[in-house]
Amino acid sequence: MNAIEQLARDARLASVSLQSVTNEQKNEALLRIKQVLAERKQDIFKANEKDKELAEVQVNAGKLSGSLFKRLDICNGDKFETILSGVSDITKLDDPTKKVTMATKVDTDLALYRVTVPVGVLLTIFEARPEVVVNISCLALKSGNAVILKGGKEATHTNAILASVIQDALSSLPDSNPIPKTAVQIVETREDISALLDLDRYVDMVVPRGSNSLVKYIQNNTRIPVLGHADGICSVYLDKEADVIKATRIVVDAKTNYPAACNAAETLLVHEDLLKTDAFAKVAQGLLDAQVTLKCDSVSQTYLQTRYGDNEQYKTKLESAVEEDYSTEFLDHIIAVKVVGDVSDAVEHINDHGSKHTDSIVTENAATADYFMTRVDAAGCYWNASTRFADGFRYGFGAEVGVSTNKTHARGPVGLEGLVIYKYRAYGNGNIAGDYGTGKKPFLHDPISPSDYHL
Amino acid sequence: MNAIEQLARDARLASVSLQSVTNEQKNEALLRIKQVLAERKQDIFKANEKDKELAEVQVNAGKLSGSLFKRLDICNGDKFETILSGVSDITKLDDPTKKVTMATKVDTDLALYRVTVPVGVLLTIFEARPEVVVNISCLALKSGNAVILKGGKEATHTNAILASVIQDALSSLPDSNPIPKTAVQIVETREDISALLDLDRYVDMVVPRGSNSLVKYIQNNTRIPVLGHADGICSVYLDKEADVIKATRIVVDAKTNYPAACNAAETLLVHEDLLKTDAFAKVAQGLLDAQVTLKCDSVSQTYLQTRYGDNEQYKTKLESAVEEDYSTEFLDHIIAVKVVGDVSDAVEHINDHGSKHTDSIVTENAATADYFMTRVDAAGCYWNASTRFADGFRYGFGAEVGVSTNKTHARGPVGLEGLVIYKYRAYGNGNIAGDYGTGKKPFLHDPISPSDYHL
Repeated sequence: MNAIEQLARDARLASVSLQSVTNEQKNEALLRIKQVLAERKQDIFKANEKDKELAEVQVNAGKLSGSLFKRLDICNGDKFETILSGVSDITKLDDPTKKVTMATKVDTDLALYRVTVPVGVLLTIFEARPEVVVNISCLALKSGNAVILKGGKEATHTNAILASVIQDALSSLPDSNPIPKTAVQIVETREDISALLDLDRYVDMVVPRGSNSLVKYIQNNTRIPVLGHADGICSVYLDKEADVIKATRIVVDAKTNYPAACNAAETLLVHEDLLKTDAFAKVAQGLLDAQVTLKCDSVSQTYLQTRYGDNEQYKTKLESAVEEDYSTEFLDHIIAVKVVGDVSDAVEHINDHGSKHTDSIVTENAATADYFMTRVDAAGCYWNASTRFADGFRYGFGAEVGVSTNKTHARGPVGLEGLVIYKYRAYGNGNIAGDYGTGKKPFLHDPISPSDYHL
Repeated sequence: MNAIEQLARDARLASVSLQSVTNEQKNEALLRIKQVLAERKQDIFKANEKDKELAEVQVNAGKLSGSLFKRLDICNGDKFETILSGVSDITKLDDPTKKVTMATKVDTDLALYRVTVPVGVLLTIFEARPEVVVNISCLALKSGNAVILKGGKEATHTNAILASVIQDALSSLPDSNPIPKTAVQIVETREDISALLDLDRYVDMVVPRGSNSLVKYIQNNTRIPVLGHADGICSVYLDKEADVIKATRIVVDAKTNYPAACNAAETLLVHEDLLKTDAFAKVAQGLLDAQVTLKCDSVSQTYLQTRYGDNEQYKTKLESAVEEDYSTEFLDHIIAVKVVGDVSDAVEHINDHGSKHTDSIVTENAATADYFMTRVDAAGCYWNASTRFADGFRYGFGAEVGVSTNKTHARGPVGLEGLVIYKYRAYGNGNIAGDYGTGKKPFLHDPISPSDYHL
C-alpha cells in the first residue's frame, strides 16, 4: 500500500469512527478547532504572509491575477474573525445524521428503519481561497464525514498550517470524543489527486470548489460521484405577459448583481410580442445603463438598432450573437439575447443550451409560469424572481456545500443534507426469509410510529 | 446528429412531456399497455418461439446454459399472466413525483418549494429475461421517466415485439394523454450502448440488471450515474453472545434460501469464543446438512476437522480458504469462514472485504449489535435476521428497481423513489437578490405549512 492509499484508508477508518459520534461531540470538536485556530493565529498569519510574498512575485510577473491574490489573503481586515465565527455558526446547524426517514414493521418481530448516515469519505479540491480548508472541514465533521483536502498551490503554506491546526485541535479532544485527527487530511500534489480519483473503494464523493475547468477535469477523470457544477448557464425568459418593471428589475439583477457567480443570468430569451411595443426596449435599456453588452440574434438586434442605433453610449454595447454565445458562461457584463415564438420555444432552448442550474420566467400568467417551471429541466425554476436566489444561504440552509447540477442525489444549492445518505437497520429475532411467502407467513409492512421506535 | 443521438434526444424530449402528466394519465397508459399486451399475446409468443428455437441450437452446442434458456421462455405456465398482473400492480403504487419535501417563505412574497420530479431519461441494460422490457418500462412510466432499453441478444425478437407493443399502446392513448411513444425505446447493439453511455447530456441514469461483469463494464465506461450493484458479498457475523439456534437458522437461510441472489451470504465470521464450546459446530452442521461447502481459515478448519473429520459426508465439504475467498461472490452452496477476535475485527473485515450490500450480526447483546450496525458501511445492517430480507418486495416497496450499493442517491433495495430527484420551484413577485442582505431586507426563512402551499 503506497502513501496515498494509506492516507485514503486512514480516512476510511476515520469515517467508521465518525459513524458513532453524537452531535455534542461533533460540536465539541468544532469549538475546539475554533479555539486552536484563534490560539495559533500568528503562526497562520506567518504562513499566509509567505504565500502572499511568493504570490506577489507572480502578480508582478503577470502570472497571477490581482483578484486571485486578494482571495489568498486571510490576514486582511476582519477576514480571520469571519472564518472563526463561520466555525461556530456550523455548530448551530441541525445534525443531518441519525434521522429516521422510514420505519416499517416487516413482521411482529422484525423492524426495519431507514436512517440517515454520513456519506463516508469526501475529497474536496479547491482553488485559491484558504478558508475553504476550515469551512469544508467543519461541514464534513458536522455531517460525520472524513475529508481529504487539496487546495490551490498558491496557498500551500496557509492550507498546510490550517489543516495541521485542525488536526492538532482534534488530537487534543478528550478521550471521550472518538473523532480521530485523520478525519481531516490534506494532500498537496496533482499526482495525489490523480491517485485519489482512482480510489473509489475509499473515497465516496468528490466536492470540487472552483473553476469550470477544474470541475470538468474531475468529472471526466473519476468514477466517484462528483457533487457540484461545471457551468452555470442560467436564463431569464420574458413572456409576452411579462410585467415590464418586474422584467427589468429581474434581468438587471440576474445579470449584474454578481456577474462572476454561477447563478448569474447568461441568456435572455424574449417573447416576440415584446418587440411589438416598447417593452423589450425598456428592459434592454436597463441592461445597457448597467453597462451590459447585449449579444443579440438578428431580430432583437434590428429592433434595438432601430431604438438605440443613434445613442453613442448604447450602440457600442449591441453586438451580434453567434450560436456559441447561447452556451457560454460569460461571468461578465455580457448577456446573450434571443427572440422566441412562445414559452415552448423558450423551454426547448433552455433544455438544449442550459446547464440545469437555475432558470426564470417573467410573466403575469400563472398557467404559462407553471408550463415553464414544470418543463424546464433545471435545479431551480423561478417565476418572477432573479436567478441570483439560487444559493444555500438565501434558501435558508445556513451553509452551502456547493451548487449541484446533477440529476441524482443532491440538486441545486446543497446544504449539509447533501453530505448524508441512509442505511437500512433491521432488528429481528432470528427471522429468516424462508419463513415468508406464498403458503407461509405474510409480511405485515405496517408503519412504525416514532413513539415505538426501537433503535 | 446520428441515429442514436436522435433516439436519445427523442427520449429527452419525451421526458419533458412526461414532467406534466398526472398519476391518472400514467395509470391509464399502464392499463392500456396491459390491454395491448394481452391482445397481441400470439404475436409475442411467436417471437418468443423464434428466440427459443435459436437458443435451443446454442444450448445443444453447449454455448448457452439451460437456466438461461429457461429464463428466456415467457410462454410457459402462467408466466405471461404474471407479467400482465405485474403491470396492473404498478398502477397501485404511490406516485413518487410531485411530493413537496421542503417549503420555505424566503420573504412575504417569495415562496420556495422543493418538489420531487422524475430523474429524466433512464438507460436500462439487462440480460436474458424479456419480461424486464415490460417491468422496467412500466416502472419508468409510473415515475415519469423516459426509458431506453437494451436486452440480451438471445431475446432479440421477444424484446423487440414487447417494446413495439408498448409503443403501440402509448400511440393509441387518447389525445388528452400527453405520454409520447418515444417514452419507451429499444436499441439492439453493443455499439448503441457504447454510444449511449457517452451521451450524458441526454441520459440521466443507467440501471443495469444483470451479471457482475455487465455492471462492472457499465460502471467503468460512463460518467452517467449507475444505479445498481456489481457484487453482493454479504456476511453474517456470529458474536460470542449469539443464540445458537438463531445463528443456525439465519446462516443456513442466508446461504441456501437462494444462493444465486445478491443478498445471499458469502462469508461467515465467527467469534473465537464460539470455538470453545459446541456452538460453532452446531452452526457448521446446519450448513453441512444443507450441502454447503465451508472454505475455512486454519483455526475454524482445525476445529471442524476435530469434530467432523471422521464423518465421510461432512469432511469432503471442509476446505481450506485462500485470501481471495473472502472477496468472492460464490453464488453457490459455498461459504467462506473466518474466526475473528471480536466484533471490531468483524466490522473491519466486512468494511475491507464486503460490497456494502447487506451484513448481519447474530447476538443477544444489544450494545454489540448497535456497535456493528453503526460501523458496518453497508446499505443494510441487520441484527438477528437473514441477509435475504434485502429486497424491495420484502421491504414493502411494492416494486424493486434494483439493489444499489452506491453511497449516493439511493442505497439498498430501490423502489420508485430511486427514480426521482427534486427541483426547487420559486414563486416571486419581481424579487431581486440586490434587495436583501446587510442593511437591506432580511430573509424570513419561515416554513410554509401544507395548507398554505401555492404551487
